[in-house]
Amino acid sequence: MPRTLAHQLLAEHLVEGELVAGSQIAIRIDQTLTQDATGTLVMQELQALGLDRARTECSVQYVDHNLLHTDERNAEDHAFLRSAAQRFGLWFSKPGNGVSHPTHMQRFGIPGKTLAGSDSHTCAAGSLGMLAIGVGGLDVAQAIAGEPLRLRMPEIWGVRLTGALPAWVSAKDVVLEMLRRHTVSGGRGRIIEYHGPGLDGLSAMDRHVIANMGAELGATTTVFPADEAVREFLRGEGRESDFRALAAEDGANYDVTDEIDLSTLEPLIARPSAPDKVVPVREVAGEEISQVVIGSSANPGLRDFAIAAAMVRGRQTRDEVSFDVNPSSRQILRDLTRIGGTTDLITAGARLHQSGCLGCIGMGQAPAVGQNSLRTFPRNFPGRSGTKEDSVWLCSPETAAASALAGVITDPRDLAEDWGMDVPMLDLPADASVNTAMLTEPPPADDAAKVELITGPNISALPELDPLPDSVQAPVLLSVGDDVSTDEISPAGARALPLRSNIPALAEFTFTRLDETYPQRARETGGDHAVVGGDNYGQGSSREHAAITPRHLGLRLVLAKSFARIHFDNLANFGILPVRFTDPGDHDRIGLGDVLSLTGLRDALAAGTELTVHNTTRGEDYRVRHDLSPRQVQAVLHGGVVPLLAAER
Amino acid sequence: MPRTLAHQLLAEHLVEGELVAGSQIAIRIDQTLTQDATGTLVMQELQALGLDRARTECSVQYVDHNLLHTDERNAEDHAFLRSAAQRFGLWFSKPGNGVSHPTHMQRFGIPGKTLAGSDSHTCAAGSLGMLAIGVGGLDVAQAIAGEPLRLRMPEIWGVRLTGALPAWVSAKDVVLEMLRRHTVSGGRGRIIEYHGPGLDGLSAMDRHVIANMGAELGATTTVFPADEAVREFLRGEGRESDFRALAAEDGANYDVTDEIDLSTLEPLIARPSAPDKVVPVREVAGEEISQVVIGSSANPGLRDFAIAAAMVRGRQTRDEVSFDVNPSSRQILRDLTRIGGTTDLITAGARLHQSGCLGCIGMGQAPAVGQNSLRTFPRNFPGRSGTKEDSVWLCSPETAAASALAGVITDPRDLAEDWGMDVPMLDLPADASVNTAMLTEPPPADDAAKVELITGPNISALPELDPLPDSVQAPVLLSVGDDVSTDEISPAGARALPLRSNIPALAEFTFTRLDETYPQRARETGGDHAVVGGDNYGQGSSREHAAITPRHLGLRLVLAKSFARIHFDNLANFGILPVRFTDPGDHDRIGLGDVLSLTGLRDALAAGTELTVHNTTRGEDYRVRHDLSPRQVQAVLHGGVVPLLAAER
Repeated sequence: MPRTLAHQLLAEHLVEGELVAGSQIAIRIDQTLTQDATGTLVMQELQALGLDRARTECSVQYVDHNLLHTDERNAEDHAFLRSAAQRFGLWFSKPGNGVSHPTHMQRFGIPGKTLAGSDSHTCAAGSLGMLAIGVGGLDVAQAIAGEPLRLRMPEIWGVRLTGALPAWVSAKDVVLEMLRRHTVSGGRGRIIEYHGPGLDGLSAMDRHVIANMGAELGATTTVFPADEAVREFLRGEGRESDFRALAAEDGANYDVTDEIDLSTLEPLIARPSAPDKVVPVREVAGEEISQVVIGSSANPGLRDFAIAAAMVRGRQTRDEVSFDVNPSSRQILRDLTRIGGTTDLITAGARLHQSGCLGCIGMGQAPAVGQNSLRTFPRNFPGRSGTKEDSVWLCSPETAAASALAGVITDPRDLAEDWGMDVPMLDLPADASVNTAMLTEPPPADDAAKVELITGPNISALPELDPLPDSVQAPVLLSVGDDVSTDEISPAGARALPLRSNIPALAEFTFTRLDETYPQRARETGGDHAVVGGDNYGQGSSREHAAITPRHLGLRLVLAKSFARIHFDNLANFGILPVRFTDPGDHDRIGLGDVLSLTGLRDALAAGTELTVHNTTRGEDYRVRHDLSPRQVQAVLHGGVVPLLAAER
Repeated sequence: MPRTLAHQLLAEHLVEGELVAGSQIAIRIDQTLTQDATGTLVMQELQALGLDRARTECSVQYVDHNLLHTDERNAEDHAFLRSAAQRFGLWFSKPGNGVSHPTHMQRFGIPGKTLAGSDSHTCAAGSLGMLAIGVGGLDVAQAIAGEPLRLRMPEIWGVRLTGALPAWVSAKDVVLEMLRRHTVSGGRGRIIEYHGPGLDGLSAMDRHVIANMGAELGATTTVFPADEAVREFLRGEGRESDFRALAAEDGANYDVTDEIDLSTLEPLIARPSAPDKVVPVREVAGEEISQVVIGSSANPGLRDFAIAAAMVRGRQTRDEVSFDVNPSSRQILRDLTRIGGTTDLITAGARLHQSGCLGCIGMGQAPAVGQNSLRTFPRNFPGRSGTKEDSVWLCSPETAAASALAGVITDPRDLAEDWGMDVPMLDLPADASVNTAMLTEPPPADDAAKVELITGPNISALPELDPLPDSVQAPVLLSVGDDVSTDEISPAGARALPLRSNIPALAEFTFTRLDETYPQRARETGGDHAVVGGDNYGQGSSREHAAITPRHLGLRLVLAKSFARIHFDNLANFGILPVRFTDPGDHDRIGLGDVLSLTGLRDALAAGTELTVHNTTRGEDYRVRHDLSPRQVQAVLHGGVVPLLAAER
C-alpha cells in the first residue's frame, strides 16, 4: 500500500510496536531540542538519570524564553544550562541567539530525522520533512539518554492544499483557517500531513508557520514533504548536503482527509482568548488597538518581518499604538538589517526588542487591561500575555502591520485600497547570513566529563516522589471546564518563569489563574487531592511543571473528559493518575470538596483500563478509563518515571 | 568683574536673590523634562496644583525607564502619562523613542536656556551650554506651573581642560578621573564649569558624557560653553538656528579651580559598588567577567556605540560573556544601523535591546550574584542592577568592548597591542537621521482642556500629608552610614519600578535593601519615627519616592551628617524635617530604638537654624542645624509643599 510521508518517517525509526492507529509504538530519536523554561528541569533529570553523555545525533539546549534578567536568577539559570550542556554533550545556543524553532530549523534541521523537544512548538520542524514532536521534559531527557520515544500511533490526517494564496494573505491565515474549521482539539491523536499542488507557493519558512501552530490544533505533529522549497532553504543556509527528498507515495491513503483551496482564503484573526476563535479580519475591522507585536516562532521568518517592514516603509505607525518587533533570531535580525527592513521598522516607530520569545511567553510586553493587542504569536490563552484581563488577538504580519498603521484592526486589503498601497515585492537574499558563533559545540567526551555543573541557589533539587498508594482518598480541590491550558495550570510570565528551576517556589503559582486559593488549600489538605477537568485538559505548552508543581502540592488524581497529549504523558511521568470519564456527564456530578476514593489500584491498573471511582461524599460511583501504556502504568505506580528508573537499576 | 558662564546663565534667569554663594536664589525655568519613573507623580502633582496648561517654553514627558511591561501596570502608566501630557500641554516622547537626556539634547536643547528635570542626570544638557538641574518632581511640577526654581547659590568650580585625549581614552575616562580625584560628594554645592583649550577635542556628545556624570559628583549641575562643537551638533540635528555662542568672560574668576591635562589620562574603571572607587583599568586587568553592557545616558552618543562596533567588527565576543547593547534612542539606533554598526555588533554576539534605560535602572539585565558586570552606565550602587550581591563596574565603551572580546577586564591599549587592533577611524555622518514621529506635540489649549486623564487602577492618589506637630517624639528605626543612595532608600528595579505611581504599594520596598524589616517596624510604630544618616545622605537619583514612601510610613525626622542636594529638597517638599549634626560624632551616640524629642518646633524653626534634639532614652541633647530656606520651613510646617500651596490658595 502506498505510504504517507508520516508512515515512512515512523517506519524508518520504529523500534517497538506496529504502525496501527491507537497502538503503542516506540521510535528512535535522532535529535532533541530543549529551551531554558523547560531545560533546567531536563538537565536535572539527566543528572538524576546518571547520564554521562548524550546519545542522540544532535541535542541542542536553547535559551530563548526567559531573557529579561529582572533579577539574578535568570543569569544563574543560564550559567547552569551552559555548564550542563557542556557536561552532557549538548550544543548550547546563547541567550540572544534566537528562538529555538527557527534557529533549529536553520542550523540543525535535516529532512527525515526525528526530533523530540520539550516545547510544544517543536512540531515546527515538520516544515523540513522531519518528524518533530513536542513532549514533556522527562521524555526528552530519556531521548537524550538514548531511550526511544513512546507514543500511541496517531491517525494520519492528509490535508491537501490547492491553489495559491491571494495577495495580502499568508501562511498564518492557512493555519488560522485550520483552527477555524477544526478547533484547538481537532488535531488530537493525529499527525497532520500537508500535500498537494498548493505547496508550490509555500516556502519552507511559510510551512514552519503552519507546522508550528499544529500545536494549537492539538496535533501530535505536522509534516510537510521535503521538496525543492526545502532544498532551496537548506542551500540558503549553506547546508544543501543535508537535503534529502521526501514525500508521500503516490496514492497514499490517509486516515482522515481535508482540503484547502488557498485561493479562497482571506485575512483571518483569532479573537481573544483562544487560538480557534477565528473570524475574517473584515468582521472585526475598526476595533481600537493599543499594541501590535510582530515575532515569535509562529511568524519567525525573514519574510514575516520584511513584509511588515515594507508595509510601514515611509509611513508612521499610530501614536497610540505600541508597535513591538521581536526578531526571532539574530541571524534573521542581521538579514533584516541587510535588506533595510530594520531601519524601515524603527523609522516607522517600532520598538525593536532583543531576539527571543519575549511577549509570546509573557516575558514583557504585557498590554493594558482590556486593551486590544494584536500579535503574530501562536497563542492567546487568558493571561498568557502577563495581564490578567487581557484581550489578545492572533493574526498575520500583514494584518498586524496594517492595523499598526491604522490604529484599528484592519484588513490589509482595505488598507491597500484606501491608501493605494501596492503588494510589497520582497527581494529577499537567497543566502542567509550564517554565523554560528553564538552556538557552542559540546566539548569532547573527556573534557566534558570534567565540567562541573554551576548550580546557583535558584536551582532546587527535583522533588522526591512517593509511590501511588493502593488506595487513594482524595478530596476534589478544583473543577474546571473545557480546554484548560497549561498556562492556567502553571503560568509562565515575568513573575513565575524565573522560578522554573525552583519547584517549591513555582508551586505557589499553580492554578492561580483559575483559583488563587488553590496552593493554600492544597497545603491545608496535606495528603492527596484530586482535580476534575473538562475536554482537552492540559492543552498548550509542553511544560512538565504543570504536572510537577500540583504533584508537589499533593495532586494524585485527575479526572477529565479528555486530555491533551503532552500533558497526559507529563502527568503519568510524574506519578499523577489521569483518568477519563466513560460518561462525560459525570463531570458535573462531582462537587468541590467531594472525597473520591479508589481502592485496589495496583491490581486494577494491571488488570485493564477500566476503573471505578467512588464518591464517598455523595455515595456515587463513576466509571472511568485510563489510557496509560503498560510502561506508564508502571511509572504511575512507582510515583513517576524517575523512581521507576531508579527501581530498575 | 568678568563672569563665569554659570553666572551669566543664572543672572539671565534670576528672579529673586543675589548671586552670592550660599544665599537663596530663585531662577526662571525655560524647559522641563520628566521621565516615566518620576513623571506619574509629577502629573498627579500638576492635578493637585490645579494646573491648566504648562507655562514653560517647552516641557517634555519621556518614557524611558520602565519598558519591560512585565504586567499591565506598565501600559497603564504609559496611557496615563500620554493623556496627562496632552491635558497639560507637554510634549510626549513615546516608549521606544529613547532615553530622555540624549533625546532632549538632540531635539530640544538650546544653549542659554534653563532646564529643570525630575531626573538627576538632567545636568547632561549642560553639554550644550544650558543650565540644567535635576530636582525633585514637585519642583518640576512647580516649574511647569510657571514658578521659579529655588536653590542655594552654588560655588562655581572651574575645571580647566588642557591637552588632548590619547588613543583608547574617551570622555568617560575624564569624568571617572574627576570622581577618582573628588569622590561622590566632591561636587556638592557646586556648579562644575569646564573650560580651556582641551575642549577643542571634545564633541557635544562627549561633553554630555562628562556633564551627565556630574550627578555622581553630587554637583548642582555642570556647564560647558556653547562653541563651535555645539553649533556643529545642532547643525547635524537640523537646528543650527537654535545655536547661540556662550562662554565665560576672559579672566572669569572661579570660586574653586582644578585642571586636567587630558593627554595624561588613561583608561579608568570604577570598582563595585560606588562610582568613585576609580582605578586604572590596568590595575584590575584579568578579572573574569560574565556581562558587558553598552548604553545609558552616560555613554549615549552614536560615537559610543560606533567605537564598540568598530572594535568588535570581524571578531567574536566571548562565549561566557553576555554582551548587551542598549541603544539610547531610536535615532541613534537608526544612525548606527546606517553606518553598519548594528550589524557589526549583532554579528559579534550582541544582544540588541530596545532603546531605553533598561539595566541602568535595574529593569532587566541583572547579573548573577558576585559575577563581574562591566557597564558604560553612570551608577553602580549596591543592588541597583537588580541583583542584591552584585558586582558592577563602570567604564568607557572602549574598555567594555575590549573586555567583551577578551572575557576578562582588559585595558583597550593592551588589546590593541596584543591583537594588533588599530585605533578605529570612525566616519560618522554629519547629519543625524532626524525623525520626530515618536514625539507627540501637545494639542492646542482648547483641545487640551477636553482631554480626560486615563487613570488605571495602578495610579493611586497622592497620599494626604498632615502638618508637622509642634512637638515630635520619634523612635529611631534605622541608622545608616555615609553615601546612602536613594536606590537604597526607595529601590528601582523590576519589582519596584512598576509601582512608582502607587505609593502604598511602593512603600513596602522602603529601605529594604538596608533592612528588610523597616516597613513592618514602621507600621508597628504607628506614629512618627526618625532615621539617622551619615554623610551625603540621599545621593543619587532625583526620585521623590525616597521622601514620600518613608513619609507614608511615618518618617518625620532625618538627622544626618550631611545631605545630598536633591534628596534634601525632596524631604522638605514632603514635610520631613532634615537636620544635620553640629557635631558629626553624635551620629554614633544614637542607638536604634532611642526616642528623640523635639519641642516648640514652630517657634524654633521660625527663629533660626539651630535646634536641640533630646534623646529621651539616653538623656542626652544634640545640637543640630537645619538648612531650610524660609519657604522650605513653611513647607515642612504645613506637612509639605502641596498642603502649603493649598493653604495659600
